Amino acid sequence: MLSFENDYVEGAHELILQRLAETNLEQLPGYGADSWCERAKEKIREACKCPHADVCFLVGGTQTNMTVIDGMLAPYEGVIAANTGHVSVHEAGAIEYTGHKVLTLPQHEGKIRADELEAYLRTFWEDASHEHMVFPGMVYISHPTEYGTLYTRAELQNLSAICDAHQIPLYLDGARLGYGLMSRQTDVTLPDIADCCHVFYIGGTKVGALCGEAVVFTRRNMPKHFLTTIKQHGALLAKGRLLGIQFDTLFTDGLYQKLGAHAIDMAELLKRGLRECGCTFHLESPTNQQFVLLKDEELERLKKHVACSFWEKPDEDHTIVRFATSWATREADILQLLKLLKEIL
Amino acid sequence: MLSFENDYVEGAHELILQRLAETNLEQLPGYGADSWCERAKEKIREACKCPHADVCFLVGGTQTNMTVIDGMLAPYEGVIAANTGHVSVHEAGAIEYTGHKVLTLPQHEGKIRADELEAYLRTFWEDASHEHMVFPGMVYISHPTEYGTLYTRAELQNLSAICDAHQIPLYLDGARLGYGLMSRQTDVTLPDIADCCHVFYIGGTKVGALCGEAVVFTRRNMPKHFLTTIKQHGALLAKGRLLGIQFDTLFTDGLYQKLGAHAIDMAELLKRGLRECGCTFHLESPTNQQFVLLKDEELERLKKHVACSFWEKPDEDHTIVRFATSWATREADILQLLKLLKEIL
Amino acid sequence: MLSFENDYVEGAHELILQRLAETNLEQLPGYGADSWCERAKEKIREACKCPHADVCFLVGGTQTNMTVIDGMLAPYEGVIAANTGHVSVHEAGAIEYTGHKVLTLPQHEGKIRADELEAYLRTFWEDASHEHMVFPGMVYISHPTEYGTLYTRAELQNLSAICDAHQIPLYLDGARLGYGLMSRQTDVTLPDIADCCHVFYIGGTKVGALCGEAVVFTRRNMPKHFLTTIKQHGALLAKGRLLGIQFDTLFTDGLYQKLGAHAIDMAELLKRGLRECGCTFHLESPTNQQFVLLKDEELERLKKHVACSFWEKPDEDHTIVRFATSWATREADILQLLKLLKEIL
Amino acid sequence: MLSFENDYVEGAHELILQRLAETNLEQLPGYGADSWCERAKEKIREACKCPHADVCFLVGGTQTNMTVIDGMLAPYEGVIAANTGHVSVHEAGAIEYTGHKVLTLPQHEGKIRADELEAYLRTFWEDASHEHMVFPGMVYISHPTEYGTLYTRAELQNLSAICDAHQIPLYLDGARLGYGLMSRQTDVTLPDIADCCHVFYIGGTKVGALCGEAVVFTRRNMPKHFLTTIKQHGALLAKGRLLGIQFDTLFTDGLYQKLGAHAIDMAELLKRGLRECGCTFHLESPTNQQFVLLKDEELERLKKHVACSFWEKPDEDHTIVRFATSWATREADILQLLKLLKEIL
Repeated sequence: MLSFENDYVEGAHELILQRLAETNLEQLPGYGADSWCERAKEKIREACKCPHADVCFLVGGTQTNMTVIDGMLAPYEGVIAANTGHVSVHEAGAIEYTGHKVLTLPQHEGKIRADELEAYLRTFWEDASHEHMVFPGMVYISHPTEYGTLYTRAELQNLSAICDAHQIPLYLDGARLGYGLMSRQTDVTLPDIADCCHVFYIGGTKVGALCGEAVVFTRRNMPKHFLTTIKQHGALLAKGRLLGIQFDTLFTDGLYQKLGAHAIDMAELLKRGLRECGCTFHLESPTNQQFVLLKDEELERLKKHVACSFWEKPDEDHTIVRFATSWATREADILQLLKLLKEIL
Repeated sequence: MLSFENDYVEGAHELILQRLAETNLEQLPGYGADSWCERAKEKIREACKCPHADVCFLVGGTQTNMTVIDGMLAPYEGVIAANTGHVSVHEAGAIEYTGHKVLTLPQHEGKIRADELEAYLRTFWEDASHEHMVFPGMVYISHPTEYGTLYTRAELQNLSAICDAHQIPLYLDGARLGYGLMSRQTDVTLPDIADCCHVFYIGGTKVGALCGEAVVFTRRNMPKHFLTTIKQHGALLAKGRLLGIQFDTLFTDGLYQKLGAHAIDMAELLKRGLRECGCTFHLESPTNQQFVLLKDEELERLKKHVACSFWEKPDEDHTIVRFATSWATREADILQLLKLLKEIL
Repeated sequence: MLSFENDYVEGAHELILQRLAETNLEQLPGYGADSWCERAKEKIREACKCPHADVCFLVGGTQTNMTVIDGMLAPYEGVIAANTGHVSVHEAGAIEYTGHKVLTLPQHEGKIRADELEAYLRTFWEDASHEHMVFPGMVYISHPTEYGTLYTRAELQNLSAICDAHQIPLYLDGARLGYGLMSRQTDVTLPDIADCCHVFYIGGTKVGALCGEAVVFTRRNMPKHFLTTIKQHGALLAKGRLLGIQFDTLFTDGLYQKLGAHAIDMAELLKRGLRECGCTFHLESPTNQQFVLLKDEELERLKKHVACSFWEKPDEDHTIVRFATSWATREADILQLLKLLKEIL
Repeated sequence: MLSFENDYVEGAHELILQRLAETNLEQLPGYGADSWCERAKEKIREACKCPHADVCFLVGGTQTNMTVIDGMLAPYEGVIAANTGHVSVHEAGAIEYTGHKVLTLPQHEGKIRADELEAYLRTFWEDASHEHMVFPGMVYISHPTEYGTLYTRAELQNLSAICDAHQIPLYLDGARLGYGLMSRQTDVTLPDIADCCHVFYIGGTKVGALCGEAVVFTRRNMPKHFLTTIKQHGALLAKGRLLGIQFDTLFTDGLYQKLGAHAIDMAELLKRGLRECGCTFHLESPTNQQFVLLKDEELERLKKHVACSFWEKPDEDHTIVRFATSWATREADILQLLKLLKEIL
C-alpha cells in the first residue's frame, strides 16, 4: 500500500533520532531551560536574521495556535482568519475554547486578500455598535495555506502594513513552512517572514520532526510571563530537550531546507506525472500538497493501492483528493503511483 | 426629538410599575423562589399550552443566550445560527466566551433555511475529519429575526423535525416575540412555538418590562442544576421578584399580547405612510422593525428631528435605517414622523 | 411570620419606585448612555471625593465580581481572598468560570490580615517554581465581610500599601457597604475607601434598590473597552436607566446613608435585646448581620414564628443563626422578635 | 555536577529510542489510530487486568489532568484535591483555566483522608445554600503524592467506596506510578488501582519515556467524543505513534516495573546512607523522592557539587530539600552523593 495521505506518516529524520540517542544521558533542566533549546533558539534567530527574536517551542500545531492566539489577544478580541483557515475549521473549536471568536474572511485558494482585510477593519471601526461586537485583535494566515498555496512577498508586506496601521499582530501558521520556503514559485524567505510577521511558527511535526513547533516573536512582543501561559494551557513539555534537540538538528547545516526541498522535488515529479496522465488539478499548488479531481469510479480503484486524503465532493460523480509528499517521500513511490494512475485513468 | 431608535427607549408598562409598588413590602425569598415567580411560571405554561414546561427568568437577552446555550451544549459542541444572528454578531463574543463556537449558515432576510441546515448537518457527519471539528449541538433562530422577519409555522416545523432527527435542540430567541406573535402576517402562535422548539425565551425587556426574559424548556430538558449554572454565569438575580412580578403582570389578562398588538398597529400605520411617501423598503418586515433606504442627504435632514438606527450602507449615497415601534409608541409621533418625511423626501 | 432572613426580602425604597414612575416615559438611549446614569455617576464621584473616578453600573453582586475581576486580571493571574470570601465560596465558581483561581488566605472573623498577605506575596515571588503557579494579581476583600465585620481605616491603608508595593489592585466588595459606612464602630468613610481601594463597588441590591451595583475605579484604571467586556459577560443591561435612576435616587439627599443608618439602628436595638436575653454571640458584628448561638431545641421553636439564616453547626446540639436587619426593617418586628426570644430562651 | 533534581533529567530508556528507530519509516495513520497505540493499549489493559478499559495517550501531566478533569466534570462541578495536590498548586491554574474550581482538603503527608472527604461531601449536600456553591464532581489524588507517599490498598478502597456512594469518579494522578508500584512498602498493585479508581493515568514522562501519559478509564466511562475534547484542548499529538511505541515498549517484558524497581533500589540505598549520615527526614517516603532537612550552611556547600530541589523553609536556618532518584540513576552517583554528604554534615 502506497501512502500519500499526509506529510506526517513517518517518524522523524534519521539525524534527529541519532542526536536524541547521542544526548540521551545528558542531565538537563526541564521545561525548555536546557542548553539544546538555547542553541536551537540561537540558530533560528540567525536563520530568520532577527537577532532579538524571542523563540519558544511547543509540541503541536493546534496547541501552538491556541496558546499564541490566546496569549496575545485581549479578552474582548478575536482573530481574523480565512474561512478555510485551520483555526476556523479543523481545530475542534480550540480557539473558541480559550474564549475568542474566529472572525472569518472569504478565502481565495486558501488565502485572504489585503483589500478585504482592510475593508473588514474599516467597517468594524465605523460601525456605531462595534462596542457590542468582537474586536479584531490579530490576523491569522497560514503559509502554505490549507490548499498548499503561498502568499507572495508583496502580499505579506501588504497584510503586514495593514496590521501595523491597526496595531494588531500578523500571525503566520507555518505548520508546513519548510515546504513553502523551498517552493520553486516563491519569493518569500524566512527573513521575509520574520520581517512581515509579528509572530509566526516554524512547523517541525510535518517537516521531519517527531513533534514540535517553534514560535518566533519578532517584535520584542512575547507576552509577559508566557511560560506560565504555556503551562496553563497544558502545553509545557517537561523534557523540553526533546524539542530543543530536534530544532537544533533541523537548523544545523540547512537540514530544514533540505527536507523542504526534497518534498518539493517529489511534488514537482508528481505534478508533471499527473499532468501527463491528463489529471484535472483543483488548483495550482506550488508546494507539497496536490489537489486533483477524480471520477468516483477511478478513486474506488485507486484506493485499493494508494492512501490519499478525501478533500471535497464538487458533484455527485467526482471527488477532489489530496496527494501529499513530504521529507520522507521516496521517488520510487511517486513512480509507482503514476504507473497506477496511468492504468486507472 | 422623536425617537424610533429602538423598542427599549421607555421604561415599563404602567401596570408593571403599579404591581411592583403594590407588592413592594411583601417579604419574599430570593433567587426566584418567591410566589410571584411561581405564578408567572404557571401563567406562561398555560399561555404556551405546555403544562410540563420548566420556566426560569433571566435579566437580559445576551445573558439568556449565553447561559442557555452554554448550559445545553456539550463542551465539544457549537451552536448553528444565521450569520446575521444576534449571537453571531452583536453579543461581543459572549458565546465564544463560554467556550463554544457559533457555526454560521447563510441568512435569508435574517432566517436560516431547512435545506441548508440539513445539508450542513449531513456534510458534517459525512466528513471523515469531523472529529477534528466543532460538533453542531443546537440550532439557534430568532423570531422575529434581527430583520423583523418571521418564520412560518411550516418552516418552524421543518427546522424542528431536522433537529429531532439529529437529536439536537432547536432554540428560539424571542427577544421581540410579542411583536412576532401579534404580526398580521403570521400563522405562528405561542403554543406552536412551544411545540416546535425544545427551548425558547419570551422577551420582556423589549416588550414592556424594565428587564427580564422568560426561558421555557418544553421537553423536560432543563439542564440539571440549572440554577447553579445561572449563578455561575453571574445571571442569578437576588430579588427574583422583580422578574416574577413583571412576567406575572405581562401574562395576566393578555397584556403581553396587547402590547405586541399595539406596536404592530403602529408599525402598520408607519408602513402605510412610508409607502405613501414613496419610500423604498429594504425588505418586507411584518413586525415592529421597518428598514428603509434613504438618500444620505435626506437622512442628514431627518436626523435633526428624529432618532433612528443606522443599519448599513448599501452604496456611497444611500443608507438603510431602521424605524422601530414598540408597546409605548404614540400614534401622534408616527404621524409627526410621516409629516416630516413628506417634507424631506 | 417575621423575617430576618436577609437584607433583600423587600422590594425597593419607595423613593426609587417613585422616581422610576416619574421618569418612565422619557425616551432614553440604552446601555447606560442615558443622562440618569451620568447624573448618578457624578453624584457618586462627589460622595467618594474622587472627581476622576470611572463609574459603571451592573445588575448583581456575583456578576460584578466576575466581570471586574476577570476584566482586571491578566489571564495567568488569580485573585487573593479570605477563604470565607463570597468569591471563594458562594458564587458557584463564577470566578473560576472566567478562568481565574481564587487564592485563599485564612479568615479572621471574615477579614484577611496584612501580615499574612505580605507573607503570601513574598513567598510566591521567592518560590523558585512560581512560574508554574497562579500569579497573585489582585486582592479581594468584602466590607462589611460575610460575617458583618469591618476593616479599620488603618487596616485598609495597610492592605492598600501592600497592593501598591506589589502593583496589584485592592478590590473591595461593598455589597453591604451602606451598612458598613453607617456602623457606629467604624472610622472608614466612603472617601477613605476610594482612597485605599483601586476599585470597589457600592452595593444597591442589599441597600434599598431593586437591583444594581455601582463599580468605582479610582485610579484611572478602568480596563480598556470595559463596556465590551461587560457585554461579553452578559452583564450589560439594555435599559441602563433602571440602574442610573436608582443610584441617582440613592445618592440624592443622602438617602444611601439614611438607609444604612436605619438598618444599623435596628441592629443595635436587636443586639441590646439579644444581650438582655442572655444570647451568646458568635462574634461581635458592628453592622446589620448578627450571628447568635442557639440550642437546636430553641431554634426549632423559634422557626415556627421567625425566618432567619442557618449559618453553621459548631456542635451536635447547637446552631449558629444569622439575623439580618435592613433599610426596610420595622422596629415593631424587632420588638416582636425579642419578645418571642424571651419566651423561648 | 551530580543531579538529583528530579526524575526527568535524562532522555528515555534506550529500548524506547531503539524501538523508535526501528519503526521510524513505517507509514502510520496519525492521531493515535496506529497499530502501535492499539498494541500498547492492549498491553496496558492486560497489566491492569481490566480488559474493557478505554486507554488513551496524552503528552504531559498537566495536560492530562486538565483534559481528563474538564472532560469528566459537569460545568458546575469542581474537583476535590489535597491542598498540596499538583492540580491545586503547580499547574499554573490549568484546571481553573478550563472553568473548574479545585476544592481543597487538608493534606496529610500529601494524602487526603477518607473521613475528611466524607465530611466534606456530607456538609456540602446538607448546606442549604449548596446550589450557590461549586458541586464536588470528582476526587483527585496523586499516587505517589507530591511528597512521595503512598496510599494503602485499604485507603484507596475507602476513597473509592465514598466516590461510588456519591456517584463521582475517583481520579488518580500516576505521574510517578511506576515508583509507587515498585515501592517496598506498598500493598497496591496496578490491578488494585484499576479496581479502585474510575480513571487514572500511568506516567511515562517521569518513568523512562521522552514524554507521554496513558489515561485509563476503568468503568466504560470515557467521555463521549473524547478525541474531540483532546483536540480542543490542544492535546492531540499528530504522530500518535510517538506515544504508542513508547508505551508498547514500557509494557513489554515488564520494562515499566523494572524501571520503577531500579529507582526504588537507588532510593533505598540513598535512604540508608542518609540515615547513616544522621540526616533528619522531613517525612518517611517509601518511593523515589526523599525529603531531608539541611542547615542552610550545609546546603550552600552541597549545592556546589549537587543539584537538588528546594522544597520549603521550615525556619530561618534550615531548608528542606528533595533528592529524586529515577530509572536512570547510577549507583555510583548515589555513592558519590553520600560521600559528599558525609564530608559536609
